[in-house]
Amino acid sequence: MVLYVVGFIAAAEGGLLLLPAFVGLIYHETDAFAYLAVSGGCALSGLLAIRFFRTANHTIYAREGFSIVALGWIFTSAAGALPFVISGGIPNYIDALFETVSGFTTTGASILPDVGILSHASLFWRSFTHFIGGMGVLIFIMAVIPNIADRSINIMRAEMPGPVVGKLVPRVRQTALILYLIYVGMTLAEIILLLCGGMPLFDSICYSFGTAGTGGFSATREGIVTPWSQWVVAVFMMLFAVNFNLYYLIIAKKWRAALSSFELWVYLGIITVATVIITVCIFPEYGNAGDSIRHAFFQTVSIQTTTGYATADFDKWNTLARTLLLLLMFVGGCAGSTAGGLKVSRVIICFKTVGREIRRLLHPRAYGTVRFERRQLDEQTVNGVSSYILVYLICFGATFLLLSFDKYGFVENFSAAAACLNNIGPGFGAVGPASNYSGYSAFSKIVLSLSMLAGRLELYPILLTFLPSLRSRKF
Amino acid sequence: MVLYVVGFIAAAEGGLLLLPAFVGLIYHETDAFAYLAVSGGCALSGLLAIRFFRTANHTIYAREGFSIVALGWIFTSAAGALPFVISGGIPNYIDALFETVSGFTTTGASILPDVGILSHASLFWRSFTHFIGGMGVLIFIMAVIPNIADRSINIMRAEMPGPVVGKLVPRVRQTALILYLIYVGMTLAEIILLLCGGMPLFDSICYSFGTAGTGGFSATREGIVTPWSQWVVAVFMMLFAVNFNLYYLIIAKKWRAALSSFELWVYLGIITVATVIITVCIFPEYGNAGDSIRHAFFQTVSIQTTTGYATADFDKWNTLARTLLLLLMFVGGCAGSTAGGLKVSRVIICFKTVGREIRRLLHPRAYGTVRFERRQLDEQTVNGVSSYILVYLICFGATFLLLSFDKYGFVENFSAAAACLNNIGPGFGAVGPASNYSGYSAFSKIVLSLSMLAGRLELYPILLTFLPSLRSRKF
Repeated sequence: MVLYVVGFIAAAEGGLLLLPAFVGLIYHETDAFAYLAVSGGCALSGLLAIRFFRTANHTIYAREGFSIVALGWIFTSAAGALPFVISGGIPNYIDALFETVSGFTTTGASILPDVGILSHASLFWRSFTHFIGGMGVLIFIMAVIPNIADRSINIMRAEMPGPVVGKLVPRVRQTALILYLIYVGMTLAEIILLLCGGMPLFDSICYSFGTAGTGGFSATREGIVTPWSQWVVAVFMMLFAVNFNLYYLIIAKKWRAALSSFELWVYLGIITVATVIITVCIFPEYGNAGDSIRHAFFQTVSIQTTTGYATADFDKWNTLARTLLLLLMFVGGCAGSTAGGLKVSRVIICFKTVGREIRRLLHPRAYGTVRFERRQLDEQTVNGVSSYILVYLICFGATFLLLSFDKYGFVENFSAAAACLNNIGPGFGAVGPASNYSGYSAFSKIVLSLSMLAGRLELYPILLTFLPSLRSRKF
Repeated sequence: MVLYVVGFIAAAEGGLLLLPAFVGLIYHETDAFAYLAVSGGCALSGLLAIRFFRTANHTIYAREGFSIVALGWIFTSAAGALPFVISGGIPNYIDALFETVSGFTTTGASILPDVGILSHASLFWRSFTHFIGGMGVLIFIMAVIPNIADRSINIMRAEMPGPVVGKLVPRVRQTALILYLIYVGMTLAEIILLLCGGMPLFDSICYSFGTAGTGGFSATREGIVTPWSQWVVAVFMMLFAVNFNLYYLIIAKKWRAALSSFELWVYLGIITVATVIITVCIFPEYGNAGDSIRHAFFQTVSIQTTTGYATADFDKWNTLARTLLLLLMFVGGCAGSTAGGLKVSRVIICFKTVGREIRRLLHPRAYGTVRFERRQLDEQTVNGVSSYILVYLICFGATFLLLSFDKYGFVENFSAAAACLNNIGPGFGAVGPASNYSGYSAFSKIVLSLSMLAGRLELYPILLTFLPSLRSRKF
């Protein structure tokens, strides 16, 4: 059953790989054949899996849902890494796997010292993985696979980022399609605006893919150069990390409901406050308000939305600015968006839970409830959020500890763990925006890849797949 | 009413200050008069407060309990810092306050580049603050103030470290006396063992005070030199961070109950595993197994028990060893001991809560309970532990952010925040074991002092005192 669904995913990936092959053919690159070959392999194995593992049993329980999500993402990444190796763009398979996991999880952490050496086909595929990963390979697949109305609920639960999955329309498939249309529409708008600023079409598409998925792979050696393109990308990063339900509400002309989202205002508030503080911090370095504000806003948004583009080497900024960025890494974007991190809504619920605990200490007889978005949260949601943050911490601590077997120091390991678990990309020091992850050992790269997957899939699917003892044993 | 109890505390401190004055007289130091003067001042203001604020109302609610604890500790530290300033040992009051808070909270973070410049009286007072702080100024006071049977419960709740306060004997005052006798007995045993190893009496007393409170102020320029004394101190650090209830059980000949404590075994397990890993890490540096094991064991125990003595500059060890120590900082000792940190029992309950959450995800209909020490924990305790860890994180993040206004980098600020909130003492880098906190600005020192107090008093008393909005506002 699990393999049956993974078969669908493989077949779909085979289809998606035709796009970079097509790009390669346009630019007359031999890399196109690597993509064609892998595309054929994926499609074939996918179709075989669908044929052999077809089953009458269409019920998916939570356990199978988690397995499908974890295996789906791992298979997609493992196969997606092959063209890089075959074409010779990234000869080492572990490196290619890291790069592809980083792409699909919309992290944007790279092992490439110089993106200029990649062919157009590979650059396109690299950014396209962000686009695919952005809305989730599986929500995408779900819109394609027929008749899965009931079983998709559990996949959704394992897949959708954030604690609150609003039921927009009764049919899941329809929801997926609507969200996907919003996603594509916004990406097209960004491409057009970047083109207006004079960015070449190919670069505009790649950077828009990276923005849409809140990924952050760079498509050119120079990065995003002109102020116009920086502002466009910054604003779209901000938009893509907003809960997509709000866009649906806006389309449905429910402006009032959309604008009364508490999470939205906290999210915008954090961005504003952080931008102001960082602007003040970096003003002496840039000397004029325009540049300072632009860099501060771009970098704040880029880190908080967990995109990870860089217009400035923020590793060289002062400690206050860097500490703020480090803390924002953990906050992340809004729930129900393409962003990673803990999500703003979880952080809000965490603070409210703490507030209730203090009220209970002072007035032991008071019961106390936690309200969010004008609804009273049931105890299970509140406890679920606390537990999630605790699991998050444990995963973070484990990644940090495992990285310490490598040669780097605290700053690199801590920020690498934060940047990968939160799906951001660049950290500080030797893994900063002016550098890359190529210095880590193969072991560390695998640890970081798992960390990226865990962060992207909201921890539990990866934990349950790689620590089977969690499934069976009693705690 | 609050001031009435604080008056008792002031009077008691006046009495306690006579001891360093006495030490000063023995060594014919003029500093003795500084201690005598402050002693007189404390006793006088204390007696006046008792006289003027005497009240018929003896009921203490949670709110007053928190205020008493917070104000008691702050007053004690503020007054205890005066002799350092008056005697000229630490001329700057903020520095002296930092040092005294660090003493009473049994942190052991110092701003002194060279302890050799202090007089015997000041050295004694400095270590004595650890001893007083260790069991808690207030639990100590409680054994002295008469007829407070009912009201002391709330002070206890605010004061006792760790989530589980076992009711050993029905009368609180009697409990306090028994714990205090165990505490004094173990300190005497350590003094005698250190004397057997050839350490001078004065140093033995000071180092034993520092061990008993899991403080960590050094009493000599050279630190703890001989292998014998290092082993003695290490073993006693380990013993003082064990839940004191267990010693009570052993005295009551309930060996079986004492040895079946799950927390104890996890605590010993962590120490063993960390010692083994660190021994392997530092073996190349020391070249022989004996030295490596001794330094690894001493440093593991020193950090996990939140004492903070150092026999080696562990800041120079490799990243794995340092990362392990950094993570151990947050774990801390057992509940109901003199150690700081999150406490082992909270960490265990945290893991168990997470395990239950995962079970619930897989089997949505299962209810699931959290068991600890063969008892089923009620939901309020489980949620309390999760909330506590979340508050802890928020306090940690706030300290880390406020320190970033200063001139140091990530490593210093992060480890200083960790070392102060967990009441350890030395961090890494410029606040490492071979250095001190004198480089921080006055603002940072105040932030760190509050952080030490918050960590020592289990967060809530300090939060409620300094953020009054928490008391009144609805979240």
